[in-house]
Parts: sequence; C-alpha cells; structure tokens
Amino acid sequence: MRALVYHGPGQISWDTVADPVIEDPTDAVVRVDATTICGTDLHILNGDLPEVKPGTVLGHEAVGEVMEVGREVHSIARGDQVIVSSVSACGNCPFCRDGMFGQCRGGGGWILGNLINGAQAEFVRVPFADYSTRRPGALALEDAVLLAELLPTAYEIGVRNGHVGPGDVVVVVGAGPVGLAAVITARLYSPRRIIAVDLSSSRLEAAARLGADSCVVPGRLIADLADGPGADVVIEAAGDPESFVLCTRVVRPGGHIANIGTPGKPATLHLEALWRKNVTISTGQVDTSSTPWLLDLVASGRLHISRLVSHTLGLSQMVDAYEVFSHGTSTGALKVVMHRD
Amino acid sequence: MRALVYHGPGQISWDTVADPVIEDPTDAVVRVDATTICGTDLHILNGDLPEVKPGTVLGHEAVGEVMEVGREVHSIARGDQVIVSSVSACGNCPFCRDGMFGQCRGGGGWILGNLINGAQAEFVRVPFADYSTRRPGALALEDAVLLAELLPTAYEIGVRNGHVGPGDVVVVVGAGPVGLAAVITARLYSPRRIIAVDLSSSRLEAAARLGADSCVVPGRLIADLADGPGADVVIEAAGDPESFVLCTRVVRPGGHIANIGTPGKPATLHLEALWRKNVTISTGQVDTSSTPWLLDLVASGRLHISRLVSHTLGLSQMVDAYEVFSHGTSTGALKVVMHRD
Repeated sequence: MRALVYHGPGQISWDTVADPVIEDPTDAVVRVDATTICGTDLHILNGDLPEVKPGTVLGHEAVGEVMEVGREVHSIARGDQVIVSSVSACGNCPFCRDGMFGQCRGGGGWILGNLINGAQAEFVRVPFADYSTRRPGALALEDAVLLAELLPTAYEIGVRNGHVGPGDVVVVVGAGPVGLAAVITARLYSPRRIIAVDLSSSRLEAAARLGADSCVVPGRLIADLADGPGADVVIEAAGDPESFVLCTRVVRPGGHIANIGTPGKPATLHLEALWRKNVTISTGQVDTSSTPWLLDLVASGRLHISRLVSHTLGLSQMVDAYEVFSHGTSTGALKVVMHRD
Repeated sequence: MRALVYHGPGQISWDTVADPVIEDPTDAVVRVDATTICGTDLHILNGDLPEVKPGTVLGHEAVGEVMEVGREVHSIARGDQVIVSSVSACGNCPFCRDGMFGQCRGGGGWILGNLINGAQAEFVRVPFADYSTRRPGALALEDAVLLAELLPTAYEIGVRNGHVGPGDVVVVVGAGPVGLAAVITARLYSPRRIIAVDLSSSRLEAAARLGADSCVVPGRLIADLADGPGADVVIEAAGDPESFVLCTRVVRPGGHIANIGTPGKPATLHLEALWRKNVTISTGQVDTSSTPWLLDLVASGRLHISRLVSHTLGLSQMVDAYEVFSHGTSTGALKVVMHRD
C-alpha cells in the first residue's frame, strides 16, 4: 500500500510500504476513506517527539471501512464504517476503566502514528479495535473524521477541563483548528462572551464565522478584558509558552486555564503572582471518551462542525496536504481532509 | 500600645505605636490574647511583598477580646472572645458572595498586616468585623489561633483544592506548619498513604508524629513512589520553585497538584511533558470559608491540632519569636504562639 512515512525531522514522503495485517486478536484492519493532519504531526516533523522513529507511518485520525478483524473483536465486523480514534484503549487497565483511555497502561493510549504505524495511509491496523473505533452513522466523512481526535480534544481538554459554564467569559488563545473547535463546543454551554486570540487575521476571521464574539490579536487581549476581573476560562490552544503566560495573566481569580497546546518546551509559571489568584490549570491529552456524545450532537444538528474543514485533497496528495496545513496562517488552512483516491 | 513594626527588608522591632481606633462603622478593635507568625511574614521580611510599606504592623492571625465595635457591627460585641481571620471580607462583593473572601473586591481580602496594620500587637483594628471574626467557643487559645489562617489554608488550598479522597496516595512537599496541617486535614479523607517530604530531619519527625505514613527527603521521593503510577495528590507547601517541579514529576496522570507555597519567584512548568499527563494544578490564597467547619472538627475532638504549636512566648518577645520561627529547621519550631503578657 501507499502511506505517509516519517524519515526523521523535516522528512516525510508518500511511500510504498507493506500492507498492515492482524497482529493481535483484538486488532482490526481498516481501509482509510478519510484522514487528516494534526498539529501534533507537525511537532513530530519538528523533532519534538523523539519517540517517533524514522520509518513510522504518521497519522492518528481516520474514517474507513473495516477489512478484517481479529478473533477477539466483537463490536465491529468486516464492512462496517468506523471512526478510528487517535487513542487506542485496552479497555481493561485501571485508567481505561476510569475513562482515561489516553493514559491506558494496557498497551494503548496515543500510539497510532506515534509508536506504531498510523492512519495517513491506504490501510491502518487498529489495536484494541473494540475500544478504539466508533460507528459514525450517517455522518459525512469530513464531519466523522473530526471526531477521531479534534473535536474530543477541544471539548475534553479545553471546554470540559476548563469548566466552561453559562455566563462565562471564555478566552481561546490560538484560533487554529483545535481552538476553533473549542469555540464551537464552548458555545454549547451558553457563555456570555467568547474571545478568540490569534496573530493571523485569516484565523480570526474564521473564529468570527464560527461564533467567537470578539477576535483580537494577543496584544489587545488585556485591554479587551479591562472592564472586569478577567476571563472565567482561558483555553490555551496555540501550544506556545508565551501564550501560556498570557493565559495566566488574563484569567480571573478563581478561574480556569485549560491547556490544550502541546509546546515543545517549558513555560514559565509565575507562582509569585498566581499563589494569590486561586486559579486552576489543567493539562491533558484527549481520552476520546466524549466521542459518542459529540457524535450524537453533530448527528442531531446541535453542533455544526463542517466549517472546520477548509481543504479536501486526495490521499496521494498527502505531502502537499502537509504543506498546506503547516502554512495555515498564509494558506487559510484549517482542517485538511484527505479522501481515498 | 506595643506592636511589631516592619521597617523594610530584614528590619523589624517591637515599638510603641498609636492605639488602633474604629475608623469605619464595620470595624472592631480587638485586644490580642494570642497571635502567631506565618511564613508569609518571613516573605515580607525578605522583601518579596513590596506592597507592605515600612511602618506597617505585621501579623494576620489572632485570638482576642473585642474592645469596641463600630455601629454597623452586629454579630459580635464588646467582651466577646473572637478569632481574627487573616482574611477580611466585605461580605457583599461578587467574590465574597461566592465564598471567595480572599479575593474580596469590597476593600477586604488579605489586608491585615499587609496593606493595613496587623495583629502582632497588643490591639488590632479588624475591618468588616462581622465577616472577619468567629467565636472560638471553648477552644484553647493555641488551637483557636491556628484557625485564623494556618488550618484553613492547609485544608482549602491543599486538601480541598487537591481533591484528596479515600485510598489516595498523598504527597506533602514541605513539612513546615502548613504542610503538617495539610497532613492532619488530609487524614480526614482516609487516604491510603501520606508521604511527607522535607530536607529537615526534625520536620520529618514531626510529620511522623502527626500522622504521615512515610517521611522522606526530596531525593528519595521518586524511588518511594516507584511501585505505582505516582501520587494522586501532591501538595506543595515548601514555597520553592524546585519543589514545585518535583511535584509535577511525581503526580500521577489524572492527579492533582495543589500549590499552597508562596514562592518569591517563578517556577518552570514543563508543559512539554505535562500536556500528555492530564494533571490539574491549583494555586490559591485562603478564603477562610472553612473556618467554622474546621472549628467544629477541632471542638468535637475529630481533629487534633495542638501538636502544631511548638513554642509559646510572651507578646513582648515577638522579635525573639521571629528568630525562633525563621530558623525552624534548626530550632524545631513549628507554629510559635505569643500570648498577652
């Protein structure tokens, strides 16, 4: 088959590799009908995740058709259409039993396109298929693939960890795809005002289209909040240490900072100021435990996510897709979806 | 009257100053029967809190007798014995109405011995006396004065913010008075194991006496936790940026770090590692909203706190008391209580 292979920092190519096969009885092999690129893939390309070895097929988000299942897979069968979650979950370790699939100690967690070959390929082996897939029902492919990771991440790590509630002032720093998905899912909780922050005017325009009430550059944020004690919830979706410090400056006493971003280096935590401010900071990698709930919200028309996809290409255009996605602030790319050719 | 006056970094003396008087109709003037010194007072002496102006009477914890009340004070009267909370609360601003007295926007918050003259004196003016005092019932003076700030801080900012629960592994970094008070109040929630961490052997011995299950130096902590995924709750009570980093290393995925410490400088937040660990970090200044509940626990014999007091001196020995307290690791001092001479 053909697949997007990582060859070390800065190096990817669309190569011919061996087809995946069932290796464990809990595996499934899925034909990829749609996949996408995540900011974390760019971190891999940047060399920030040294655990990803050259030769690995990247990608951890897909929708496709089940080709084959291992003998211990019971919830899906050949021919089923499934969302392949970024998180593989054994379903049985203490963390999985507590719904913390991202922290699976039974061999799962985020391994796809990280420790094992991933989904930016014609076919993908999905470990622990019973706990790592979900049927998308009648959802369009472009919507369904956003449920593999993007939407659960924005919701679980941003909106839910941040405890967004009715009447809140919510700041989302970073209006890339995950930040925009946070804007959309925060709206479900009837906040008073959502402020999107980004340096890119095209991303701020996207945030406005997707429901942000104010869209400002970072330098304007403090002035924009000057009429109150600060933001109830600040969601960091830029993955930048400087953005994180901005978040700690604008959160109100008693407020929450939910860090979604995945910076490659440490941030400064100004405890000398924050000890008096009673703030809560959460970090996290998605569990995808919310996927069924989000899927129902999308399917029933209560959550509109299709505008998060800016570009669709063919699978074989994967290297081009990385170009488009990685220059999102100039190309206007949000989520880039690749379809089976 | 006589009072402990701050004259700038490193400089305090026991001076004659003007007696406090009722300035606002919500004030009370209280004769100090017992007061104590807080780690924050040492930060003031160290110059870490520049808002404290030379000439300020220090101290924000006291028990004493009400001498006089303003015309709008209704819940206490002349002759009442009261605990003077470190936090003065207007009771009416949005933060006070939400129980966040430490964040009072109506002129209160932690102002005593900070922005206004404090309680290390023969008499103290207590603003917003209705919301800033509490009758100690039959409690001994040494116990009652610990309810002015120490015990609520350890409980609210450490144990409650850290969500200590039954079966948890709890690490308390820093076995000074507030850390030890965290050990005692964490015990109320039936944790599996409490590990106290300090460099001082005398403090580790105190922690063992007060109920810690393991007492280790920082360098031993990681090995001590090697049999599991880490601590469910880590309480930072040392106020040191390096200790904070240790806390982030030993917390389990999904665990809580509750920062009580008041460091004078920033800490490093290793977001490059923590983004995958799903941790929650809380910071905070006490509200003293838990004082009535803690008082009941002490009064009813379910919480034993008297061992937190290591030294008792007379009020006029205040400067000596600072010496004893500030060299706690060599003097063995925990909480030092000064009584009316």
